[in-house]
Amino acid sequence: MAERTKYILDEAEMPTRWYNVIPDLPEPPPPPLHPGTREPVGPDDLAPLFPLALIMQEVSGESYIDIPEPVLDVYRLWRPSPLYRARRLEKALGTPARIYYKYEGVSPVGSHKPNTAVPQAFYNAQEGVTRLTTETGAGQWGSALAFACATFGLECEVWQVRASYDQKPYRKLMMETFGATVHPSPSELTASGRAILAEHPDSTGSLGIAISEAVEQAAADEGARYALGSVLNHVLLHQTIIGEEALKQFELAGDTPDVLVGCTGGGSNFGGLAFPFLREKLAGRMSPVIRAVEPAACPSLTRGKYAYDFGDTAGLTPLLKMHTLGHDFIPDPIHAGGLRYHGMSPLISHIYELGLMEAISIGQQECFSAGVKFARTEGIIPAPEPTHALAACIREALHCKETGEEKVILTALCGHAHLDLPAYGSYFAGDMVDDELSDDALAESLAGLP
Amino acid sequence: MAERTKYILDEAEMPTRWYNVIPDLPEPPPPPLHPGTREPVGPDDLAPLFPLALIMQEVSGESYIDIPEPVLDVYRLWRPSPLYRARRLEKALGTPARIYYKYEGVSPVGSHKPNTAVPQAFYNAQEGVTRLTTETGAGQWGSALAFACATFGLECEVWQVRASYDQKPYRKLMMETFGATVHPSPSELTASGRAILAEHPDSTGSLGIAISEAVEQAAADEGARYALGSVLNHVLLHQTIIGEEALKQFELAGDTPDVLVGCTGGGSNFGGLAFPFLREKLAGRMSPVIRAVEPAACPSLTRGKYAYDFGDTAGLTPLLKMHTLGHDFIPDPIHAGGLRYHGMSPLISHIYELGLMEAISIGQQECFSAGVKFARTEGIIPAPEPTHALAACIREALHCKETGEEKVILTALCGHAHLDLPAYGSYFAGDMVDDELSDDALAESLAGLP
Repeated sequence: MAERTKYILDEAEMPTRWYNVIPDLPEPPPPPLHPGTREPVGPDDLAPLFPLALIMQEVSGESYIDIPEPVLDVYRLWRPSPLYRARRLEKALGTPARIYYKYEGVSPVGSHKPNTAVPQAFYNAQEGVTRLTTETGAGQWGSALAFACATFGLECEVWQVRASYDQKPYRKLMMETFGATVHPSPSELTASGRAILAEHPDSTGSLGIAISEAVEQAAADEGARYALGSVLNHVLLHQTIIGEEALKQFELAGDTPDVLVGCTGGGSNFGGLAFPFLREKLAGRMSPVIRAVEPAACPSLTRGKYAYDFGDTAGLTPLLKMHTLGHDFIPDPIHAGGLRYHGMSPLISHIYELGLMEAISIGQQECFSAGVKFARTEGIIPAPEPTHALAACIREALHCKETGEEKVILTALCGHAHLDLPAYGSYFAGDMVDDELSDDALAESLAGLP
Repeated sequence: MAERTKYILDEAEMPTRWYNVIPDLPEPPPPPLHPGTREPVGPDDLAPLFPLALIMQEVSGESYIDIPEPVLDVYRLWRPSPLYRARRLEKALGTPARIYYKYEGVSPVGSHKPNTAVPQAFYNAQEGVTRLTTETGAGQWGSALAFACATFGLECEVWQVRASYDQKPYRKLMMETFGATVHPSPSELTASGRAILAEHPDSTGSLGIAISEAVEQAAADEGARYALGSVLNHVLLHQTIIGEEALKQFELAGDTPDVLVGCTGGGSNFGGLAFPFLREKLAGRMSPVIRAVEPAACPSLTRGKYAYDFGDTAGLTPLLKMHTLGHDFIPDPIHAGGLRYHGMSPLISHIYELGLMEAISIGQQECFSAGVKFARTEGIIPAPEPTHALAACIREALHCKETGEEKVILTALCGHAHLDLPAYGSYFAGDMVDDELSDDALAESLAGLP
């Protein structure tokens, strides 16, 4: 019998509950605050933006939440996703480590984002909402929401960070194929966008600005709500189906991870894989090192401040206690558009502060080098975002080669690069620069924080 | 228990043999002829172009050929591929028909092409070849061969039809990420290319021209061989793993197809799905109607002549008995670049002449309309090529809606459109024209045939 390449679950084995890590933590994360009163925000404050079902999930104290059947039914279009053993990469590296990757690129839009886009569209449709607004960076979240809205009959309007809008025209076409409307951000359509353009007419945008625009539009229309692709508790909750599946697949493999590595922008792909493993760690059933990898150009966890800050640039959201580079920080237009966010999920920030996980940052050239090595061995061309996780994975595997340790490494391959190929073109052309955030720029950006 | 969306096989259930339909046919297909002697070509004539193992497969009389373990090992990176029941599309159409699709877009390059690229690269590497040349249309074949060459350590040089090279820059970047070199065709690098450019400096190219260029280069270099992505017997042989898997999956589904529909350019995706079902039909175990769908702009089966013709434009290949529009026919630059071939696989042409299958042609607007409907229900945005099969599928399903027949329809979804999204942009912009080949142009092109 040949050595196994991938571990597949049947549809009938797909998890039917999302996992909420909060009740299992030694202490709960600090609550979001109302920027005026500085009191914890309540459901009423959030009602103009989100449907009640999602607000209740955001503050839930339950450990498990059932996935509605219509959501499971859409998940079955691509889930369960495969867990791969990267035997060809291991061989090319000459490492004794065993490398596994959980591959979310099998979804219709090629990333993990539909895991939360689908339930968000479902709950909104169920509560009578007819239109969703959102922001997107590289376009993975926007195309996921466009797909989800097509599925449940909602209109979808997307503000895409201009840097990505210009670099990655195919994503816009994908969103339009699913029936969505796409605007480059900053745009002239919102007060938030016009304010930025007045000051910086050539702004390449940021996720923070795009969020302001989408939030402003949703709040102004009774039939509309806003959808966020990362950062918030309910978003990370929906992504835990990744880790729950991976746990079942590790049982099939008869293995246990020693190191879990994922890339972090807002934190949803990382949290989705890591939280179920963190539950096992907290319960003493396994003891993986859990490591986040962020871009050197946007290092919120490793160099940001843990403070209350706005989730968006214009200051329209509640204050979130998180690792932040400052809500008006605009990162270099690196190719990993999905990692260009000034803050980090409050939940992941809290878990980091509790010492339950590690974080490192890596420059994009090392990441693309890892991406090319991965493509030429495993076949899948990774999106710019997960090349960060792969670069860290390769560092760990090469370390094992030196020490002879047979560590088991698990990484989150959250999407493919079919729509990000110009980034590889730039890497091959030699015109990709490394992008470490300077101390001066960091100090200037953090100066405005409490 | 929820209704099943897809039928998945475990790696251990993956077929380990390819199926050769020729011994099961009532008579064998006419042999290729040497253009000088008009005698059947022998292995020696083909040796400058192909490794011996592939030449032997081309003329094999065996019903089954074992898949080498190193090829199976690469297949496991994405195979077995899923068989889907298109429940959401059925519901949107309101049809009593049951629609299934076998989805090959899960491969690393997003199409069925690696099924033959991998064994072709393997056999060449085994016989000491160090460099493969090839042509590509939309780029699906070129990227598949680039991936396969990366896997077995071969150099890869691709001539891409200029119409697609210009329309679809992402495919070139994908080929380069796998390490290949890509030239637009016609190019100044070959005598065949220069001859075309001398007469038509603005030529947008054709598969026939690109084949001439790649064949010329391979023949001129002792360490190089040529690889073809469709048309030939050994290529269709390798693709039969699609149909063999689908047969096992239909057993799981407890269903049997009444109609099998696939798109045809050179015929490899169609033959790959259809031949194992044709075996079952010839043996009296099932009786599906087998229907090829080709573009109205390039209707080789439905309007071409069944005659001996060259496989390429410059006349460097053996003469193949096939349905052809004439080897110097250059179709309109429709978006389904992979279907822009003047001829049809000799094996499929022969089976068509035997009356064992049907063929129709459809214009591209109806195809893209079907593609959008499919994307918005099933989530997957289909490549321009299989939108032809989907359009025929929808015609059949709507016919069932009229008659009330609960037919079981099986179609080949041979790839996704992630790298072909500008074609959808053109469709939405309303600047896509229908493209039926005129009688005059057809007559002129056929005039040169025997």
